[in-house]
Amino acid sequence: MKEDVRHLTNKLLTDGTQEDLTVLKQILTGLNDKINKKHTSFTSALLNMERNVEEKSCSIKMPVSSTLHNSLGIVHGGMSATLIDTAMGALANQLAPEGMGAVTSQLNVHFVQPISGEEMTATASILHQGRKTMVLEASIMNPDGKIAAHGTGSFYLIEMK
Amino acid sequence: MKEDVRHLTNKLLTDGTQEDLTVLKQILTGLNDKINKKHTSFTSALLNMERNVEEKSCSIKMPVSSTLHNSLGIVHGGMSATLIDTAMGALANQLAPEGMGAVTSQLNVHFVQPISGEEMTATASILHQGRKTMVLEASIMNPDGKIAAHGTGSFYLIEMK
Amino acid sequence: MKEDVRHLTNKLLTDGTQEDLTVLKQILTGLNDKINKKHTSFTSALLNMERNVEEKSCSIKMPVSSTLHNSLGIVHGGMSATLIDTAMGALANQLAPEGMGAVTSQLNVHFVQPISGEEMTATASILHQGRKTMVLEASIMNPDGKIAAHGTGSFYLIEMK
Amino acid sequence: MKEDVRHLTNKLLTDGTQEDLTVLKQILTGLNDKINKKHTSFTSALLNMERNVEEKSCSIKMPVSSTLHNSLGIVHGGMSATLIDTAMGALANQLAPEGMGAVTSQLNVHFVQPISGEEMTATASILHQGRKTMVLEASIMNPDGKIAAHGTGSFYLIEMK
Repeated sequence: MKEDVRHLTNKLLTDGTQEDLTVLKQILTGLNDKINKKHTSFTSALLNMERNVEEKSCSIKMPVSSTLHNSLGIVHGGMSATLIDTAMGALANQLAPEGMGAVTSQLNVHFVQPISGEEMTATASILHQGRKTMVLEASIMNPDGKIAAHGTGSFYLIEMK
Repeated sequence: MKEDVRHLTNKLLTDGTQEDLTVLKQILTGLNDKINKKHTSFTSALLNMERNVEEKSCSIKMPVSSTLHNSLGIVHGGMSATLIDTAMGALANQLAPEGMGAVTSQLNVHFVQPISGEEMTATASILHQGRKTMVLEASIMNPDGKIAAHGTGSFYLIEMK
Repeated sequence: MKEDVRHLTNKLLTDGTQEDLTVLKQILTGLNDKINKKHTSFTSALLNMERNVEEKSCSIKMPVSSTLHNSLGIVHGGMSATLIDTAMGALANQLAPEGMGAVTSQLNVHFVQPISGEEMTATASILHQGRKTMVLEASIMNPDGKIAAHGTGSFYLIEMK
Repeated sequence: MKEDVRHLTNKLLTDGTQEDLTVLKQILTGLNDKINKKHTSFTSALLNMERNVEEKSCSIKMPVSSTLHNSLGIVHGGMSATLIDTAMGALANQLAPEGMGAVTSQLNVHFVQPISGEEMTATASILHQGRKTMVLEASIMNPDGKIAAHGTGSFYLIEMK
């Protein structure tokens, strides 16, 4: 395995563009941060997420880079959806009763403007907190203060082992 | 940049777990495949997507691994949403008139079962093809033949430069 | 009460247009049909719904008339959403275990073409049947065989008293 | 036609329950109000909607009665969806440029609590105002100040004849 990793890295260092290496460096930074307990999942590590959970809201920030692009060269809707889902999920899990976790059962996202700026932040708040389900909303704002994407999600509470 | 990449790779080779190295190897493979034109975006490269576009449908397959996990250790809803959005988007772009591209304006996903199996495939089909908008649906099936996630999306047609 | 009803009916008969009387006649027919047990709810009676539940699908049909129009003179999106929700809900309740009922927890509808024709029918099918939740989809087709509206819904199973 | 209306009304006055007559009286009141220009559509008349459009928000109120019930005896999700869609649509039309109208292209609603109280009000606000599309949100609050239903909608701008 280690030999494979060294070999593939060397190929990239030889054949990759500057953009390829920037993406790789960002990912390697995230993976090292995960070893240092800065991330609790690979998704968070690969996207370099930083979370800020407060009592009634949660924000997750990540850098905007080629890593997130679709083949049109703009941020992939799935990446915005992932950020929105993560912000809502982090708040839902924080609000869940002791011993319970929250999993997304349904997600709706409106993509209304291309993402601009060097980083993107989704901020989540709660719409409904029930005994078995929660509904949250989250927005990603562009630097001009206008909404770039807005989502709502249904979460289901499950017992954690 | 190259020095940074070498340094960060070495730290991971020293401190990383087997799981960390497996994730890294998968990503390096994707980035090398992108250099060889197998992927048209970093999102596709990092998730090792394989696409199969036919006349009226489109399937995108990707391996299920720790890379996709959220902090509960199951496939992150955002990753399933990304796969569904990519399958619908690929079909929408294939169906778009010459010189036009399709961008997601809205996405709704139902997550109904945890993803199981070693790879996951989203298959998209068209519900409505208008002059300015399209609506598509896509499902991810588990190996037992049951739906794991189902999504619908609204796409907006734009002129490509 | 009866005096009020008589008085208001007479005012309508005097001042109403032909369109007003057509709408009223349709509603009175529905209310009389409800007395004859043809409908189990006022919503169904007022919209003159006819349901056809089979083992794995459910269709609900209703006449298209001015009753359903919004102020632009086309079928109100809420009326299409109601028909779609009713078709999915009827099938969900039919599939629910003995002693359980299904209530909509979330509904997503795409309105892709104006409704045309003299009646509209929503046909529902099941995407996921769990122990506590179900997800269904339903479409309204225009006479030309193309989709006019497509919806998906999440249903929650509750114990019936 | 007039003879039919008289005949059907008389049958209801003879055979209908108190609840049937209450529903009929409410509908007759709405239809008469429409003649007096209080409503611009039959949907609004039949549901006795009252609208209050301000510069940046719009509220629509309607009485809660048996008229709105599904066969479980609670407010039909389609009726809540209709109220939410109407509030968003009224605001979208108010915000649309001169000569343009707004039609719903997609609607997502979360139903989180049964509707309680004697009337229900949806209040809409704008999330995104583009040149060709708008995205709005609206909530129905219960008398206890908690959300009963929350929706978002995509609107498409069309030229009015």
